[in-house]
Amino acid sequence: MRSSLLLLTLVSVSAHAEEGMWLFNDFPAEQAKKDLGFSPDPQWLDRVRLGSLRLANGCSASIVSPDGLVMTNHHCIRACLEDLSTSERDLLATGYLAPAREKEERCPKFEGNQLVKITDVTELVLTATKGASGADFQKKLKAETSRLESECSQGDAARRCDVVTLFHGAKFHLYEYRRFQDLRVVFAPEFQMAAFGGDPDNFNFPRYGFDVAFLRLYVDGRPAKTPEHLKWAKKSAKEGDVVFTSGHPGGTERGLTLAQYEFLRDVSLPWNLVSLAEQRGRLDEWMKQSPERERVVKSKLRAVENSLKALKGRREALVAPGFLEGKRAAELALQAKAPEATKGAWDAIAKALLVQRTLYVDYVMREGAQAFQSELFMHARRLARARVEAAKPNGERLREYTDAQLPALKQSLLDAAPVHVELEQARLTWSLTKLREVYGADDVFVKKVLAGKSPEDRAAELIAGTRVGDPAFRKERFESTAKIEEADPMIAFAKLIDDDCRAVRKRWEDEVDSVVKKNMELISDAKRAVGVSGPPDATFTLRLSYGRIKGVGTGPAMTTIKGLFERASGKAPYAVTEKWLAQKSKLNGATPYDVATTNDIIGGNSGSPLVDRNGDVVGLVFDGNLQSLGGNFGYEPLGNRTVAVHGDLIITALQKVYGATEVANELRR
Amino acid sequence: MRSSLLLLTLVSVSAHAEEGMWLFNDFPAEQAKKDLGFSPDPQWLDRVRLGSLRLANGCSASIVSPDGLVMTNHHCIRACLEDLSTSERDLLATGYLAPAREKEERCPKFEGNQLVKITDVTELVLTATKGASGADFQKKLKAETSRLESECSQGDAARRCDVVTLFHGAKFHLYEYRRFQDLRVVFAPEFQMAAFGGDPDNFNFPRYGFDVAFLRLYVDGRPAKTPEHLKWAKKSAKEGDVVFTSGHPGGTERGLTLAQYEFLRDVSLPWNLVSLAEQRGRLDEWMKQSPERERVVKSKLRAVENSLKALKGRREALVAPGFLEGKRAAELALQAKAPEATKGAWDAIAKALLVQRTLYVDYVMREGAQAFQSELFMHARRLARARVEAAKPNGERLREYTDAQLPALKQSLLDAAPVHVELEQARLTWSLTKLREVYGADDVFVKKVLAGKSPEDRAAELIAGTRVGDPAFRKERFESTAKIEEADPMIAFAKLIDDDCRAVRKRWEDEVDSVVKKNMELISDAKRAVGVSGPPDATFTLRLSYGRIKGVGTGPAMTTIKGLFERASGKAPYAVTEKWLAQKSKLNGATPYDVATTNDIIGGNSGSPLVDRNGDVVGLVFDGNLQSLGGNFGYEPLGNRTVAVHGDLIITALQKVYGATEVANELRR
Repeated sequence: MRSSLLLLTLVSVSAHAEEGMWLFNDFPAEQAKKDLGFSPDPQWLDRVRLGSLRLANGCSASIVSPDGLVMTNHHCIRACLEDLSTSERDLLATGYLAPAREKEERCPKFEGNQLVKITDVTELVLTATKGASGADFQKKLKAETSRLESECSQGDAARRCDVVTLFHGAKFHLYEYRRFQDLRVVFAPEFQMAAFGGDPDNFNFPRYGFDVAFLRLYVDGRPAKTPEHLKWAKKSAKEGDVVFTSGHPGGTERGLTLAQYEFLRDVSLPWNLVSLAEQRGRLDEWMKQSPERERVVKSKLRAVENSLKALKGRREALVAPGFLEGKRAAELALQAKAPEATKGAWDAIAKALLVQRTLYVDYVMREGAQAFQSELFMHARRLARARVEAAKPNGERLREYTDAQLPALKQSLLDAAPVHVELEQARLTWSLTKLREVYGADDVFVKKVLAGKSPEDRAAELIAGTRVGDPAFRKERFESTAKIEEADPMIAFAKLIDDDCRAVRKRWEDEVDSVVKKNMELISDAKRAVGVSGPPDATFTLRLSYGRIKGVGTGPAMTTIKGLFERASGKAPYAVTEKWLAQKSKLNGATPYDVATTNDIIGGNSGSPLVDRNGDVVGLVFDGNLQSLGGNFGYEPLGNRTVAVHGDLIITALQKVYGATEVANELRR
Repeated sequence: MRSSLLLLTLVSVSAHAEEGMWLFNDFPAEQAKKDLGFSPDPQWLDRVRLGSLRLANGCSASIVSPDGLVMTNHHCIRACLEDLSTSERDLLATGYLAPAREKEERCPKFEGNQLVKITDVTELVLTATKGASGADFQKKLKAETSRLESECSQGDAARRCDVVTLFHGAKFHLYEYRRFQDLRVVFAPEFQMAAFGGDPDNFNFPRYGFDVAFLRLYVDGRPAKTPEHLKWAKKSAKEGDVVFTSGHPGGTERGLTLAQYEFLRDVSLPWNLVSLAEQRGRLDEWMKQSPERERVVKSKLRAVENSLKALKGRREALVAPGFLEGKRAAELALQAKAPEATKGAWDAIAKALLVQRTLYVDYVMREGAQAFQSELFMHARRLARARVEAAKPNGERLREYTDAQLPALKQSLLDAAPVHVELEQARLTWSLTKLREVYGADDVFVKKVLAGKSPEDRAAELIAGTRVGDPAFRKERFESTAKIEEADPMIAFAKLIDDDCRAVRKRWEDEVDSVVKKNMELISDAKRAVGVSGPPDATFTLRLSYGRIKGVGTGPAMTTIKGLFERASGKAPYAVTEKWLAQKSKLNGATPYDVATTNDIIGGNSGSPLVDRNGDVVGLVFDGNLQSLGGNFGYEPLGNRTVAVHGDLIITALQKVYGATEVANELRR
C-alpha cells in the first residue's frame, strides 16, 4: 500500500515536470537540468531550431540532410499527393518514390519556414498602442505590426517576418524565417500504411502508423543547401530515454479566463463538433458513390474525422467534473492577490465574450466562409480583396494582404492545384444550404446570397461560370490594374457579399479581440506580480518540449513490426499493402514500430522530429493518444502521450519495403 | 416612452400567465378565469379529455366524429404511409384518400389511447417503497407499479393502464386508457405540402405547412363508436381569440436541479447533437443515390432534422447568458428555506449524476441500441427478451415486458411492416462503426459484437441470415415455448450481448434513477413547504394549455393561401404540388393558412387539436417557432409560439383541392 502510493507520487512529480511547450528563447535550463540530469546549451538550441521547419499548411517538419531533405508526416503532405494525382494516377493509393532527384515533383501551395531569428518587440507594440482601446487600439496595433513586419522582410520574398502575439497579447515577438516556396516530394508510403488503423485507432496507442514522408527544399530550381540540418542518431531510442520534440504546436488554451473556457464549452466547441459531424457523414456517404469521388475526398474525410475526434476529447476534458471548478478557484485566488490596476480585466473579457456570443455564428459563416465552402470561392475572395486592399496604406490592410504576407498570398493564388468540380458543387451546395438553415429563408443576407435560387442551382451557376479555377486567369486578374466591370460570376459574388463579411470581422476585431488582448496584458501583469510563470499558450510557432519514452501505466512504450502483422485483419482500415506482405518474411519482427513518449505536444506538432539528448533524430512525431486530447487545457501527466514513428522503422521500411535506399543513405550520411 | 413601457409590462404579465401544461385533474380554474375571463368547467374538461387521443408513437390527436374519425398531423403518420408504400406506390409523394370507408387501410404498429380515468396512487407507491433505496427501491417501485397496472388492466388488451411518474418521482398517478390497436388511414396530403418549407422553415413562423392527416379508429374490424368526440367549431378562429391545446407534451425539464441541467449541457445534449448531425449528413447523401432510397428514408431524414433543430435550440436556451445563473439562484434560495429533512437531496442527485456521466455512453449505445440501429435487431431483442422475461414474476420483469405492457409489445412484434434491407444494412453498418469508434477496436465488448469482422460484413451476415423480418416467423417464435437452440443469427446476436445491455440498465436504474426519484420527492416536499407550485414537467400524458392567437411582436398571427403561392418558388422545399396549382384560381387567397398562438406546448403535442372556449375544434397544432425550442426549460412569453393549421384551411383544402368532401362533411356533421 505504502510503496504504491510512493510510486504514484514520484510518477506524478516527475511527469508533471514535462508539461511545457517552451520558447527557444526562454528555455528553462535549470528546470530541465533538474528533471533530465542535463540541459541543452545555447548551441544545442540553435542547432535544433535551425534544423526544424514549419510547414505553412499547419504542420511541423525537420531538415535532415545538407541537401534540403525534409522529414514530415504523410498526413502533412496528403494535400500535395492529391494535387499531384489524377484519376489515372492515385498517389495516395500507390505511395510515391521519386525515381531520381531531378524527377522530384513540386507540391503546389507548400511553404516551409525555417526560424532564423527572434526579437522581442513587446515594448514597441505596447508603446504604439498605449492608451488606445476598441477600434483605435486595433488600428494602431495593426499599423505597428505591419510596420515591423515590412521593415524586417524588406520586400524579400525569401524572408518571412511575423509579429507573434504571446500570452494572448501580453508579449509580442518578431519571428524572422527563411522562407521556402518550392518543396518537392521525395517519398511517401501508401495512405493505407500511413493511416493504418484509420479512425478507430486514431489517437490511440498501441499503434501502427507509418505516417512518414520526405520532401526536399528547392531554391532557384535546385536543392537547397542546408548545412544546419539535424543528424540521424547513431543509437536507437529505447524505453526510458530522454527525448525532445521541436515543432509548432498549433494552439493551446491553458491560460484562458473562466469566461473564455465557458465560451468554448457553450459556443465554439459545440458549433464545430456538430458541423464536423455532419460533414463527416456527408463526405463518407458521398465518396462511396464512385472510386473517383473516393480518391478526391478520402484525405479530406480523414482530416475531418481527426478534428472531430480531437475536439470531442477536448470538450470532454473541459466538462470533466472538477476541471472548470479548478480553473475558477485559481482565477479567484489570482484576482484576490492581483494589483488594483488589473482587477477589472476579467470582467472586461467576460463582457467582450458576451458580444462574441452574438457574433460567433456570423463570423464563422461569413468571414470564416463556412457558408461558402469552395476553393473557387476562396480564390475569388482573394482576387476581389487583393484589389481593394492594395489601394490602402500597408498598415490599414486586412492582415493577410499586407506587404509582408504578399508571398504567401501569391502562392495560394498562383500555384497550380487541380479543382474538383464535382466536390466543389457538393460542398458549396451543402454550405449554402447550411447558411439557409442557420438564418432561415427570409433572412436578408440569405436572400442576397441565394439570389432567389436553390442552394444547388446557385452553386452550379457560380461554379459553371467562373474561370478562377485556372491559375493563368488568376494571375492575369491578380496582376491587372485595369478598372473593369467584373464579369466572372464567382468574383462578382465574392464582391457582392464582401461588405457583410468584413463588417462582422471588424466588429470582432474592435469589440472582442482588442478588448481581450488589452486585458490579457493586465492579467499577465497580475500573474507576474504574484509569481505565476510558465510558457505562453501555443501559437503555431516553434517550441521545444522534453520527455521520455514511456507507455501509459503498465502498457507498452513501443510496438513492433511483428505486432503490425498480428493486427492486420486484411480489412480496411486494418489491411497492410502488398509491398509489406511481400517483404514480411525478410523483416525483423522485433524492429520497433511506433513509440509513446511523455512529451507535451498538440495539433501542429505533426511532423516534429523526435530528437535525443544530442539533438539527433530518433523518430518522427505524428499523433497523441486519447488522453492527450485534453492537452489543449493542461498536461495530464499520467496518461498524456505523444505518438511517434521509431527511427529504426523509418530506415528499415525505406530500405527493405520501399527500395528507397538512397533516401535512407542520405539520412545517415 | 412611458406608454411603450406600460405595454411591455402588460404583455409580459398576461403572456407569462400562459405558461403551463396543466393536468386535467389539477386545472387552475381560478387562474384561468383571471387570465381568460372564464374558465372551463369540469364537464368541459371531461369532454375535451375524452375527445383527445394519444398516438403511442409519440404524437397527439383528436377524435372528431362519432364514427371514430381522428385528426392528427401528417408527420405523425408518415411511418404508416411509408409502411403502406411500395416502390410502385409512394403515398408520401401522392398523398392518400381512401376511396370509400371500407377501403381505409390499416396502419401497422399504430396504437391510440383515450384517457378515461385518472387515479392518484402516490400514497400506495410511497408506502410500498418506504425506507428502501438503490436496487431495493427500484425493485419495490417496479413491483408496485406492475401490480397497480395489472390490477387496472385485468388482462384486457382494450384497456391500457400506466402508472405515471409526476414531478420526477414526487407523485404517481394511474392513467387508464381505452386502447385502440386498429387505426386506418383516411386522408393524407402530399409530403411536399405537409412539410412545405422543409427544414429551413421548420420551427419558423410565418409558415405554410398543411401538416394534416385523418385516421379512423376501428374496433373488431368496424369503425369505432365514439360519441364523445370533439365538434368542429361553427365560428372561425380570429387573431386575439382564446384557444386551448389538449395534447401530450412529450417531456419538459423545467423542474430539474442545477446538477441535472449541467448534465444536459455537458453530456446528453452534446452527445445527441453530434450523433444526429452525423446521421443527418449520412441519410441525406445516402438517399440521393436512388429514388427508392429517397422513398424509404425521406421521412426518417425529416425526423432527424427536426430533432437536430429542436435540440440545437434547446441547448442554446440552456447556455444563454443568465439562464443557469437564474436556476442556481432559485435553487440556493429554495435550499436556504428548505426543511432540514430535505437538505441533502440536491447533493444526492449531483452524486448520482456523477455516476450517470460514467454510464451515459454505455447506456445509449447498448441498452439504448444506438450501436445497433436496425429494426431487425429490435425485433430480435424483443423476441429474445420476451422469452426470458415471461419466466419471471410480473413485478420483476423489465417494464416493457410486464403483463400490462403485453398488448403494446405484441403489436410492435406482430404487426406487419416492411423492412428495407438496404437501409437496414446501411444503418447497422454505421452504428457498428460508431461502436468501434467510441470504444476502440481493442475493447472487449466491441470484439464480442464484431466477432472479428468489419462492421459492414458483420451487419451483412446478421441481416442476410435472419428471418425476424417475417411477421409469421416472429409470431411463431413469440408463441413457441419449446426450448430450442437459437439458430437465427440476429436473435442469437441479441442474446449474445443481452447481459452487457442489461447490466448497464440495472446500474442506471439502481444507482441513478432510484436516487433521483427518491430525492426529487424530497425536493418536491421542500417546494411545497415554501409554497412553490405549478404543473409537473411533461411526461407524454394529457395536458391542457391555454393561450391566444397572436404573432410575435408586430409579426402576423396568421398566414393565408395567397401567401403560400407567393412563397412557392417551384423548387424544393418551396414547391407546391400540381393539385394545388390546378385549383389556385378557385381558392380564396384570403383563407387563413397557419396560425401562431401563445399556448405552451412541446414535442409530443404534434397533432393536438386547437379548441376554442366552447371546446370545439378551430385548428390543428403541428409545430412551435424557434423561440419555443427553449420551452423545454421554461416558457418565454414574448416569443414562444405554437404553430397550427387553421381550421378553415382544413375544410377548404379537403373540399376544393383534394376532393375529400365526405371527410369535410363528417367533420362538420
